[in-house]
Amino acid sequence: MTEEAGLPEDIPLAAVRRGELVESVHRGRLAVYDPEGIVLEAFGDPEAYVYLRSSAKPFQALPLVLSGTADAFGLTDEELAVACASHNAEEFHLAAVRSILEKAGLSEDDLQSGAHPPMYGPEAEKMVRRGDDPRPIHSNCSGKHAGMLAVCVHEGYETLSYRDPGHPLQRRILGLVADVCGLKEDEILLAGDNCGVPAFALPLRSFATGLARIATGEELPDELVEAALHVRNAMRAYPFMVAGTERLDTELMERTHLLVKGGAEAVLAVGNPEGWGLVLKISDGSQRAVRPAALAALGHMGVEVGDADSVVRGLHGETVGEIGPLI
Amino acid sequence: MTEEAGLPEDIPLAAVRRGELVESVHRGRLAVYDPEGIVLEAFGDPEAYVYLRSSAKPFQALPLVLSGTADAFGLTDEELAVACASHNAEEFHLAAVRSILEKAGLSEDDLQSGAHPPMYGPEAEKMVRRGDDPRPIHSNCSGKHAGMLAVCVHEGYETLSYRDPGHPLQRRILGLVADVCGLKEDEILLAGDNCGVPAFALPLRSFATGLARIATGEELPDELVEAALHVRNAMRAYPFMVAGTERLDTELMERTHLLVKGGAEAVLAVGNPEGWGLVLKISDGSQRAVRPAALAALGHMGVEVGDADSVVRGLHGETVGEIGPLI
Repeated sequence: MTEEAGLPEDIPLAAVRRGELVESVHRGRLAVYDPEGIVLEAFGDPEAYVYLRSSAKPFQALPLVLSGTADAFGLTDEELAVACASHNAEEFHLAAVRSILEKAGLSEDDLQSGAHPPMYGPEAEKMVRRGDDPRPIHSNCSGKHAGMLAVCVHEGYETLSYRDPGHPLQRRILGLVADVCGLKEDEILLAGDNCGVPAFALPLRSFATGLARIATGEELPDELVEAALHVRNAMRAYPFMVAGTERLDTELMERTHLLVKGGAEAVLAVGNPEGWGLVLKISDGSQRAVRPAALAALGHMGVEVGDADSVVRGLHGETVGEIGPLI
Repeated sequence: MTEEAGLPEDIPLAAVRRGELVESVHRGRLAVYDPEGIVLEAFGDPEAYVYLRSSAKPFQALPLVLSGTADAFGLTDEELAVACASHNAEEFHLAAVRSILEKAGLSEDDLQSGAHPPMYGPEAEKMVRRGDDPRPIHSNCSGKHAGMLAVCVHEGYETLSYRDPGHPLQRRILGLVADVCGLKEDEILLAGDNCGVPAFALPLRSFATGLARIATGEELPDELVEAALHVRNAMRAYPFMVAGTERLDTELMERTHLLVKGGAEAVLAVGNPEGWGLVLKISDGSQRAVRPAALAALGHMGVEVGDADSVVRGLHGETVGEIGPLI
């Protein structure tokens, strides 16, 4: 912790350059751990807490498999992938979410994901042109909510209060996050996520270790191994379901063997099936810094994805600067 | 300069809180100077350079008055204010920009501001609904470009190459920025701004001092005093012209006696007619941190504008956190 304001120690991870100068700089923390909880790489304080936000979705989807819901309702791996998604609300995302709901005997009306315009700009523009308002199914989290509802139906849980931290499904998810990440439940801090379900905060170190376990299937309680690998394989098999067109998670899964899930406020979770979990948090929450910092960090771990620098263009198409990593 | 990466020393200025934790943090620098260049307040390194971006617009508008262009073409103070604007492309902004062009015998076709959707969301949505593409007049900088073109017509300068750093108007603006801020021209670094005209970088200290001079009319070369106060008074008289609905610059000018002009990458320039200039730069370029940091900084200077904290709401309208100052 720095003395300045009780904030975690972080370091400059990415910079926006213009002319001869750095115009803006993004600090952050990142940590890479193996499934046993051994640190492989760390920048900034790995003990300080981080909100997982949507990068918790692979954990939140575990009950779908563990409870037998996915098998009982015949959910496909595309549907499992969209249950782990922060999706673009492209047509194939909406179709997969609807299918989960139908198989569970539910409909769009049961979703309590809240509504926001589609994350993918062209879909949002189409909606404005049609004069339509976004519905809960267009929320990037609607697959997660559909999956949660399906578990409730299968397990006989109440479906109206499924977002409540005290609901049996949410209690079960909290227990799973704790088990996978090697924490006690009371070491995990809860708050409200923007879509209305619990958001989890835990040490960067614990989250990276948990990701390493999900990605490898190693060091997990026996009963979780198959579910973890099923979720991992579904996300890996359908990277466009997990995010969509022009999205970093999809791009990285298309181009590597990694499991990738981003979250709001510039969190990125990466699991390597060959042995580690990496968590990146840009301190200021800026999404634009995630790609250069992540590509540089992956380079440090021996995974070359491509050029971490990208050009910033002005309104006449000319190059006015670039954004790139500082590590 | 920090040892870490040759970056200016900055400090945490604002935080986004969720539940019990700070989820994201915004660092930055701010400095307050009087017209004589005496420091009144500083957080972070005031000597390090900052790109002024659009907060240079009051300086870039000086030739409109100094050259006699505004008088010769009968430009109103509303039109002078829009020449200093990063505007929302609301109808009254577009009308003022068109009027400047017409008075100079030009048209929208002469604007080289580049095009982007209106900054004000509802105007951008209207455009999508109409199926129109944004034109250069919708650019937030179109008033500045119209003003530059008017000066060129009045002064007999070439109007096709007015964006070029070597063009006589751009050379004149550079000289004015140097004179007002107490620098030599070669102490100012130039790069391309996104709209295609030169962007200026100078020490935070020099910019704050220059702002104090523009806002007070003090410590300026004699020939600049009247032009500076004319620009200041026009912006103060028409705060909606300078930005628009739901914009911080407009809000602060409506609620205080200050001169306020923001810029891209989270720069805010504030001039107090009673004696100082304040410059704030959020290091990571996040606009959301400008308001809380600025309101807190103004509070330090004895200007109370209102609550610097604001609530962050989830998709169900519930409070999920807050953003507020750390100073």
